[in-house]
Amino acid sequence: MKTLNLGLIGAGYIGHSMALAYRAVGALFPDLPPIRLAMLADANDAVATKAAQRYGFAASTGDWRTLVGDDGVDIVAIATPNHLHHDMALAALAAGKHVHCEKPLALDMREARAMADAAARAGTRTIVGYNYLHNPMIRLARRMVARGEIGRVVHFRGFHEEDYMTDPALPFSWRCERKYAGAGALADLGSHIVSFADALAGPIAELAADVATVVAERPVPGGGMRKVENEDQGQFLARFASGATGAISASRVATGRKMGLAFELVGTEGAIAFDQERLNELRVYRAKDPSGARGFATILAGPEHPDYAAFCPAPGHQIGFTDLKTLEVAHFLGAIRDGRPAEPDFATALRYEAVIDAALRSAESRAWERVER
Amino acid sequence: MKTLNLGLIGAGYIGHSMALAYRAVGALFPDLPPIRLAMLADANDAVATKAAQRYGFAASTGDWRTLVGDDGVDIVAIATPNHLHHDMALAALAAGKHVHCEKPLALDMREARAMADAAARAGTRTIVGYNYLHNPMIRLARRMVARGEIGRVVHFRGFHEEDYMTDPALPFSWRCERKYAGAGALADLGSHIVSFADALAGPIAELAADVATVVAERPVPGGGMRKVENEDQGQFLARFASGATGAISASRVATGRKMGLAFELVGTEGAIAFDQERLNELRVYRAKDPSGARGFATILAGPEHPDYAAFCPAPGHQIGFTDLKTLEVAHFLGAIRDGRPAEPDFATALRYEAVIDAALRSAESRAWERVER
Amino acid sequence: MKTLNLGLIGAGYIGHSMALAYRAVGALFPDLPPIRLAMLADANDAVATKAAQRYGFAASTGDWRTLVGDDGVDIVAIATPNHLHHDMALAALAAGKHVHCEKPLALDMREARAMADAAARAGTRTIVGYNYLHNPMIRLARRMVARGEIGRVVHFRGFHEEDYMTDPALPFSWRCERKYAGAGALADLGSHIVSFADALAGPIAELAADVATVVAERPVPGGGMRKVENEDQGQFLARFASGATGAISASRVATGRKMGLAFELVGTEGAIAFDQERLNELRVYRAKDPSGARGFATILAGPEHPDYAAFCPAPGHQIGFTDLKTLEVAHFLGAIRDGRPAEPDFATALRYEAVIDAALRSAESRAWERVER
Amino acid sequence: MKTLNLGLIGAGYIGHSMALAYRAVGALFPDLPPIRLAMLADANDAVATKAAQRYGFAASTGDWRTLVGDDGVDIVAIATPNHLHHDMALAALAAGKHVHCEKPLALDMREARAMADAAARAGTRTIVGYNYLHNPMIRLARRMVARGEIGRVVHFRGFHEEDYMTDPALPFSWRCERKYAGAGALADLGSHIVSFADALAGPIAELAADVATVVAERPVPGGGMRKVENEDQGQFLARFASGATGAISASRVATGRKMGLAFELVGTEGAIAFDQERLNELRVYRAKDPSGARGFATILAGPEHPDYAAFCPAPGHQIGFTDLKTLEVAHFLGAIRDGRPAEPDFATALRYEAVIDAALRSAESRAWERVER
Repeated sequence: MKTLNLGLIGAGYIGHSMALAYRAVGALFPDLPPIRLAMLADANDAVATKAAQRYGFAASTGDWRTLVGDDGVDIVAIATPNHLHHDMALAALAAGKHVHCEKPLALDMREARAMADAAARAGTRTIVGYNYLHNPMIRLARRMVARGEIGRVVHFRGFHEEDYMTDPALPFSWRCERKYAGAGALADLGSHIVSFADALAGPIAELAADVATVVAERPVPGGGMRKVENEDQGQFLARFASGATGAISASRVATGRKMGLAFELVGTEGAIAFDQERLNELRVYRAKDPSGARGFATILAGPEHPDYAAFCPAPGHQIGFTDLKTLEVAHFLGAIRDGRPAEPDFATALRYEAVIDAALRSAESRAWERVER
Repeated sequence: MKTLNLGLIGAGYIGHSMALAYRAVGALFPDLPPIRLAMLADANDAVATKAAQRYGFAASTGDWRTLVGDDGVDIVAIATPNHLHHDMALAALAAGKHVHCEKPLALDMREARAMADAAARAGTRTIVGYNYLHNPMIRLARRMVARGEIGRVVHFRGFHEEDYMTDPALPFSWRCERKYAGAGALADLGSHIVSFADALAGPIAELAADVATVVAERPVPGGGMRKVENEDQGQFLARFASGATGAISASRVATGRKMGLAFELVGTEGAIAFDQERLNELRVYRAKDPSGARGFATILAGPEHPDYAAFCPAPGHQIGFTDLKTLEVAHFLGAIRDGRPAEPDFATALRYEAVIDAALRSAESRAWERVER
Repeated sequence: MKTLNLGLIGAGYIGHSMALAYRAVGALFPDLPPIRLAMLADANDAVATKAAQRYGFAASTGDWRTLVGDDGVDIVAIATPNHLHHDMALAALAAGKHVHCEKPLALDMREARAMADAAARAGTRTIVGYNYLHNPMIRLARRMVARGEIGRVVHFRGFHEEDYMTDPALPFSWRCERKYAGAGALADLGSHIVSFADALAGPIAELAADVATVVAERPVPGGGMRKVENEDQGQFLARFASGATGAISASRVATGRKMGLAFELVGTEGAIAFDQERLNELRVYRAKDPSGARGFATILAGPEHPDYAAFCPAPGHQIGFTDLKTLEVAHFLGAIRDGRPAEPDFATALRYEAVIDAALRSAESRAWERVER
Repeated sequence: MKTLNLGLIGAGYIGHSMALAYRAVGALFPDLPPIRLAMLADANDAVATKAAQRYGFAASTGDWRTLVGDDGVDIVAIATPNHLHHDMALAALAAGKHVHCEKPLALDMREARAMADAAARAGTRTIVGYNYLHNPMIRLARRMVARGEIGRVVHFRGFHEEDYMTDPALPFSWRCERKYAGAGALADLGSHIVSFADALAGPIAELAADVATVVAERPVPGGGMRKVENEDQGQFLARFASGATGAISASRVATGRKMGLAFELVGTEGAIAFDQERLNELRVYRAKDPSGARGFATILAGPEHPDYAAFCPAPGHQIGFTDLKTLEVAHFLGAIRDGRPAEPDFATALRYEAVIDAALRSAESRAWERVER
């Protein structure tokens, strides 16, 4: 198998996570194409140099265009703030690279559509960083749904709630600003729970939304207050294309919640529940179990579930956050190797973005809005 | 203290629960007015006779009007199907009785308003059977909110989900018919979670709703199928008068859920979570706890919480469903003794009904609707 | 059916619980013999009078011998401190009464044997207040074991831990004194978990124990400190007659535990777990469930489980502590009606006491000891 | 900082885990000495070659003595079956290497003592693979205990239970044979829970134990049955040097348990509970919290806890099994860098082995035995 050369843009939180994943994947999945850490870019040259050394990249640059233009690079991984995704992805696709872009895809639908279109034209592989989808427990849930084990899906209730901005003393940052972040909690967190909804109950057709900015203004470093431009929390009622109903919410001020990405999926013959704060567990109810013995069973991730065995041959030993990113990378490399679409690629992620876009429109119009790609 | 004579109408599920509660209350709360079980009415005369004997009522009747008209009766407790509440309550109030009415108050707003008006005129005490409000853990939650222990309330997410009608083979019953039940899951279950929302986050001002009938038709005993007339599940986005946001849902086809009456209440400095399936627990998060040691604490009901000690002097021993009904009765008797409104009386319950009414209107109009009493 | 006249001795915590149960049982179980509350005795005459009025007993007395000697009394219920059980039970049995005795049976094996012998001679019904055994979930567990649903039982790990004496400032009381309480945590709490072990894994044949008095002395009201005479915590390794192994512990200083009566029962083909702090749940694992879908299922108590339906026709609504006592009474009345032994009668409870006795001996001898009745 | 050259012996389950950890550590902890993957040894030469390629080792060998004798190797990591630890560790120490040995240290006390003595003489760093000790949540627990946050520790109840040998059809393997595995569940699993007990409650002074072989014989591949030579489950009562009491058990046939490494630690002013199946959670109770608001708080691992931030700056995102091994390696490298003992080094691990040894002696003698190093 041909070695694939990775160019990584961004040395922050997500860049760290991606670097760890690309470093680890080969030892875990020896049947995938080998990875060579070719180049790391960061807007800050010194940061790039230091990060490249830390992770073992062969080269570094302070200019992402150098990386994108480098013939030695096969995969461009984009781990930068949201407003940069569009230009970087377009340049990378134009240069014929496979593109691994952190979520959300883009600032708005215009950008997102352009990116999905460019990906379709380029013919290379793309993937967007909805890493929680690659959890063996989520894949188990999808398999159960696909096999009809919970009957027809009739309801999806889910949320992604964290409290990283509960404290009103936290300063104004790019996350509060529309031109750098786009939407607020809906884009940052809501898109994750939308990815689960889409994977488990199918596309959302229409919705009615409401948003609120709980902390209206935040202190600016250096003095003064500045108005927060996007929502702290958002929520919507959903109608899926299948006719199923849904209720979805997102919050970055959900005091007490650290990684509250959770759902309950109701079927006519069973139900599935999940909470990312216990990511190695899936709770499953089967209406057909014998009377007197029915109840939600807590299934622990184990080697009988997809990909778990790469980490450990024994059940219940737990995988973690960085492992999920590694599974995302593994999935991407498999798609590259096999010439099939990764999931979610730009086209699929566009579907998630369209839901967030419709939610923002609905919160404005105070009316039901159709999801339009 | 004057002994209060109870007249109970209805010998079904709720009648049983009320009878147990009125029988038990005196031994648990010796400071409340003593109760005499004066008369039990049921449409079926033989059933009434048998039930009166079982519970120890002094008399029975097959005609509820006899009971309501009896001078020896001080309290009329109404435990009949929803469509009968209105006429019975009006007659009882007109006869100068205190009225204990099972929830929901009535079939629709017109009836409910008439009942609240009649109660205001009668000047006797009324209470509606939102028994879960009397849980020591809910009262603890309310006290915490009132004391500002979780800061300003910004979000309420709650649901009441059961699966008693998941099975499509369950026959058509009065619960499926508008003229006997009014709304479906929203009226039967949604009103409970609305009572929690109201108690913890204040009145709901406006909402956007959606409903669905998952099992469109059900078998009629004797043959054939009949269209179900009300919703199996309903959900709405809420705006509270305080500005807080909310998301509330109800379902009678939530496969796997038996008594899923649960909420999370988010404040700016803490959060409270509750699930009726573990009714003796309240989960509380305080943002001001020391860093590194913050987390949701599971508080077990104990004698330091309101009214628990009546049942047991030791914490953690658990109260149950019938105890909650007894606490409702105790609260009612205290209100009668002290000449103060019980909670929720007809006026307060009207507020809950108005929310359900607005939800049904919104599901129809597909628009945000104001809650109007 | 003949009405049974109850004489209750003791108006404290347990007396309250028994009074509530005997008051409630008739309305819940109309097929059992009716109960008449005939007489209540308490060492304090005024207390007896007041309690009789509160619970509705026809008469009261300050002398329990009057109650035991009354021809109108059919059942003597003993709810007094441990050191009085022996004399009261013997007198009641000699007078031909059915005897409902609170646990533990007696202060020591000599007393307990005398009581069991007297019961055998009397030929009336006896029951000892191991109320937790009557939980529908425990009965479900027993049924599962009996049916072989978890295979052969190989291990029982259980404890009963509370923290009611954690605080070293709590004064010295009769519970700390051998002549009034007998053993400490092992007698008060350990006997409950032994009753579960016996019911689920059969009789314990031998054991090795250790005990500790964590708070060595306690303040005496009025001044000074006094040495605590019995154990705050005790634990033992067990060998069941079946060959299964066990580990059992009890503590009254288990900080944080309120009603920690919990076990895990391991079989060759499944496992069952229970915690009294969530008494409406049974957690069951079946090794034969399909691979990938195995996990502990949380079964919620419902009408399909023994006796639950008496309280509520809907599952998940929860029963509580006082309901368990009512179930104990119902079981006792059924045994009286049918002329069969109640469970646990004095003979069975003697088996539990023998385990506690062996544990105390082993803690002294520092050797394995056989359980000897 | 000098780069440290790693020689890894063993390419099985644990070798995999160690390889992943040594590969990952540098990117996560840039302040530690860099690691070069110098050589991998496996008894099977072809396996060694393939594994070396997979993980990126510079060289491989079929003879571990070649690795140990190589001047270019600084650290020898031993990931082989238990019976080989002794000879390999002694050879590595004699060659002046730092030694990372998988647990348990050795087959018996004679071997373990020889290894601890050799380590003391060698003056290089040693560590034994009790990876669960390096969990940020366990380190938090230790810190709480050290600071007196739960008062004086009075009881430790813990177990390590899995079900990997529940199935009687599983064939006889080296794990069932004394000369290759030493003890059974007590050595394999019990040593982990002993490491927790030692870290949290101090050294165990004496104990009384019991063991059982639940599946007495197992099929031999090729036909016939063979007697299992060591225990499937073991349990003991413990007395700590501090006077605290304990109850500890281990089982490899605990049906339903996958990674049931759990404990409750009781102090005079609080309690701490943990379960490895939810390794990112610590449950803490503080007796001094305000009345009415006390309860076990579930603390989620986050960047405010030791070392978590290396993986993720956001709380609640979860670390996994492989991350724990990486933390073990990081701790080891820090000890090498700083010239201080790692924990647990051979001397400390000897203390754990001595407990297991005493348990086996006690199970034989049926008497309390002192732990003797």
